[in-house]
Amino acid sequence: MASCTWARAVRGLLLDVSGVLYDSGADGGVPIAGSAEALRRIKAAGLKLQLCTNETQATRENFVRKLRALGFDISVAEVTAPAPAACRLLKERGLRPHLLVHDDLIPEFAEVDKTNPNCVVLGDAAENFTYANLNEAFRLLIGMEKPVLISLGKGRYYKETDGLKLDVGAYMKALEYACDVQAEVVGKPAKRFFESALAELGVPPEQAIMIGDDIVSDVGGAQQCGMRALQVRTGKYRPSDENHPEVKPDAYVNNLAEAVDIILRHL
Amino acid sequence: MASCTWARAVRGLLLDVSGVLYDSGADGGVPIAGSAEALRRIKAAGLKLQLCTNETQATRENFVRKLRALGFDISVAEVTAPAPAACRLLKERGLRPHLLVHDDLIPEFAEVDKTNPNCVVLGDAAENFTYANLNEAFRLLIGMEKPVLISLGKGRYYKETDGLKLDVGAYMKALEYACDVQAEVVGKPAKRFFESALAELGVPPEQAIMIGDDIVSDVGGAQQCGMRALQVRTGKYRPSDENHPEVKPDAYVNNLAEAVDIILRHL
Repeated sequence: MASCTWARAVRGLLLDVSGVLYDSGADGGVPIAGSAEALRRIKAAGLKLQLCTNETQATRENFVRKLRALGFDISVAEVTAPAPAACRLLKERGLRPHLLVHDDLIPEFAEVDKTNPNCVVLGDAAENFTYANLNEAFRLLIGMEKPVLISLGKGRYYKETDGLKLDVGAYMKALEYACDVQAEVVGKPAKRFFESALAELGVPPEQAIMIGDDIVSDVGGAQQCGMRALQVRTGKYRPSDENHPEVKPDAYVNNLAEAVDIILRHL
Repeated sequence: MASCTWARAVRGLLLDVSGVLYDSGADGGVPIAGSAEALRRIKAAGLKLQLCTNETQATRENFVRKLRALGFDISVAEVTAPAPAACRLLKERGLRPHLLVHDDLIPEFAEVDKTNPNCVVLGDAAENFTYANLNEAFRLLIGMEKPVLISLGKGRYYKETDGLKLDVGAYMKALEYACDVQAEVVGKPAKRFFESALAELGVPPEQAIMIGDDIVSDVGGAQQCGMRALQVRTGKYRPSDENHPEVKPDAYVNNLAEAVDIILRHL
């Protein structure tokens, strides 16, 4: 069996969740074959593990509850997600957000002053992406002397069990264009977000590896921080990703289980 | 009284409608003071007149009916609008559209084959810009070998009587980003669209003048065709338009009535 240079000297893994551990969906989602077992093997081998997700449809507590019900042995501390990072940023800069997010995410912003908004925070609002809600967010932004738009990720789309869905990045672009502003992205692929995830992982970038299904947010973002990054051929992966003009993963793997197999053989 | 060089030798006027003749709204809209009288004076003076609109919320027939009810003496032949131009383009290129447009616009596409779509046509769908409809249009596009997105205009926003609304351009940007495609714009500011309007006006560009409230779609588009263009300070006009980095109107006027006053004095 050939040796894989990309798999050497790994001490910690950052894992994307949707499309790597499971395919999400209104039905709660379906685990990807072999992923729960792969997670157990990572931990049994003594490797560090942190989930690095742009999930903004639920609080981390509810997200972890869902993952545990699907058979994944995960705790809240093992999840790095955009909403808590956004809350830190809002507090640092004295920003009071108008939220256009999923109902289930709102509790993450419980401690943040939301009166008389001076910025808009955009998440994957899903069914809350209504014409009325988008117009409301737009009017608030265009009415600000200096519009501040904070986007929890900038994904183009993701895959649910009933098909592909537009992700927050598409709506971010709509508001950016309408208001002639550039959003600040909190979440993958922002460098600062990966740096937080690495700090929580407790491993330097050259000993960490990111595994995800998004060529830009996962692979591009991680590599920009000096980490290696793999793209899995599950989730939203499309063969055309392998011709991406700018981003080239360190390797493609069929799924998380295959990646973990190879990494463990190189310990 | 000073002479205005921009007002010399005008033989025909192209007029934007919403924000120039009236402010649109769910209540049917409200005429802008002096505009109906200005229209009468243009015609009485023997000047040519054509409305050049990106209106895609109604067929031209219904649009003209609404304008007449508001007191504007206009016929269907005097309206250049994106939907008929799009129909010509679809037929020329053998394209079968999936329509994401306002319900009231659908009859304009009655003669077009819409089975097994090989492109998406996007208009100002207003309440039809639902999460489900946007996901449907996205899935069709991303599933095409070479996605073709045709957008009826690319306005950023417009003003209705109850406030500013996101226009088709914002949703166009969302789909462009999600599918990594560039939309083809039919309507203002496309050069081809202004050329059609000029042909219908029957006046060469150097003897025509465009009057609109949109600095980019109206003023920029018309000037690019060699016409003069005025921005009115009604409709969606905002003082910051006067600092636009790229587009500079030949003049600002407070409203259509003032523009027509000056033009008629220079005949």
